[in-house]
Amino acid sequence: MRTLRVQTKSRTELVDVTARLAEALEESGLRQGMLTAFVPHTTAGITINENADPSVRHDLESALDRLVPADWSYAHLEGNADAHIKATLLGSSVNIPVEDGRLQLGTWQGIYFAEFDGPRQRSLWVQVSRGLEAE
Amino acid sequence: MRTLRVQTKSRTELVDVTARLAEALEESGLRQGMLTAFVPHTTAGITINENADPSVRHDLESALDRLVPADWSYAHLEGNADAHIKATLLGSSVNIPVEDGRLQLGTWQGIYFAEFDGPRQRSLWVQVSRGLEAE
Amino acid sequence: MRTLRVQTKSRTELVDVTARLAEALEESGLRQGMLTAFVPHTTAGITINENADPSVRHDLESALDRLVPADWSYAHLEGNADAHIKATLLGSSVNIPVEDGRLQLGTWQGIYFAEFDGPRQRSLWVQVSRGLEAE
Repeated sequence: MRTLRVQTKSRTELVDVTARLAEALEESGLRQGMLTAFVPHTTAGITINENADPSVRHDLESALDRLVPADWSYAHLEGNADAHIKATLLGSSVNIPVEDGRLQLGTWQGIYFAEFDGPRQRSLWVQVSRGLEAE
Repeated sequence: MRTLRVQTKSRTELVDVTARLAEALEESGLRQGMLTAFVPHTTAGITINENADPSVRHDLESALDRLVPADWSYAHLEGNADAHIKATLLGSSVNIPVEDGRLQLGTWQGIYFAEFDGPRQRSLWVQVSRGLEAE
Repeated sequence: MRTLRVQTKSRTELVDVTARLAEALEESGLRQGMLTAFVPHTTAGITINENADPSVRHDLESALDRLVPADWSYAHLEGNADAHIKATLLGSSVNIPVEDGRLQLGTWQGIYFAEFDGPRQRSLWVQVSRGLEAE
């Protein structure tokens, strides 16, 4: 398992980690199977979405704020209840197929660490699983 | 890795791909482990839900339209910002356990490719990971 | 594949299954790779979130009720359409990295079976996938 450090800069932020995950894959030596990127936090998540127009990321952040407003009345009093809920809506891991030692992503796909309670120093864990071919 | 082609017929559509994933699993030869179905698009997702009453699919489509209306004001101007957000809410992959060469699903579960910006010709990638038993 | 039984006690309930998944992992004998917990139901899901302050769970349940009210008009007439939608928003499985035979979770993370149409007797399936190290 490898650990990436992700420094976020605002309360909500989608940080592109695609290139760093590709690097971690290369270091792992996996040729064929699956890469899993796992977020070990409860106020951040991870998602795959468009890597071209940054307005998609902006819309995603805004939509999550509209769906789960920070100012609803919550029982959890640390001021980040919305962040916990957004984390659950996105999920704590993504899986990406691996062939010939490379991440297999669609043309327009990038992988985004989703900060909902930043800025913070975060971790992202990378694990690989074997496919059927012999290594 | 195998690629399935999925032709969608309307803007929003949940297409049952369960039987085709079972076929792809058989072709892979995996006996025990995990099958991952991965959507290489950013305006479509994938989910597991009821395979019996089609009204569940209808309600799911409607609820997503209510949660993320197409006519909110978005920064992304291609007219499919809502589709990107719905894709992230569902996620880009599902994992299904495999035993004795068979997909293990609950009685009422089917696997649905979730189109949010159709109609289009789409792809669905299938990858398998080894379990602990020797193959 | 191992099966855990989960008895839920109310319509909506987040049941902590972390310790039982750790036990199932130990029984499997996997040293390094990935554990997948899979929900074979269509009105329940699974998520990873805070294991300390129980108010987070309460807020998560309330937020899902606000996002997907039970009293919207639905086509599915069994009175649990909202439960199907919530299940899809959370997803039917989680992946957790495994190193040295142990689940790798963040300090504040617990794994929760998410009941949306209880009380019921439920199942949770546990499957493991091999990492790159020899077993």
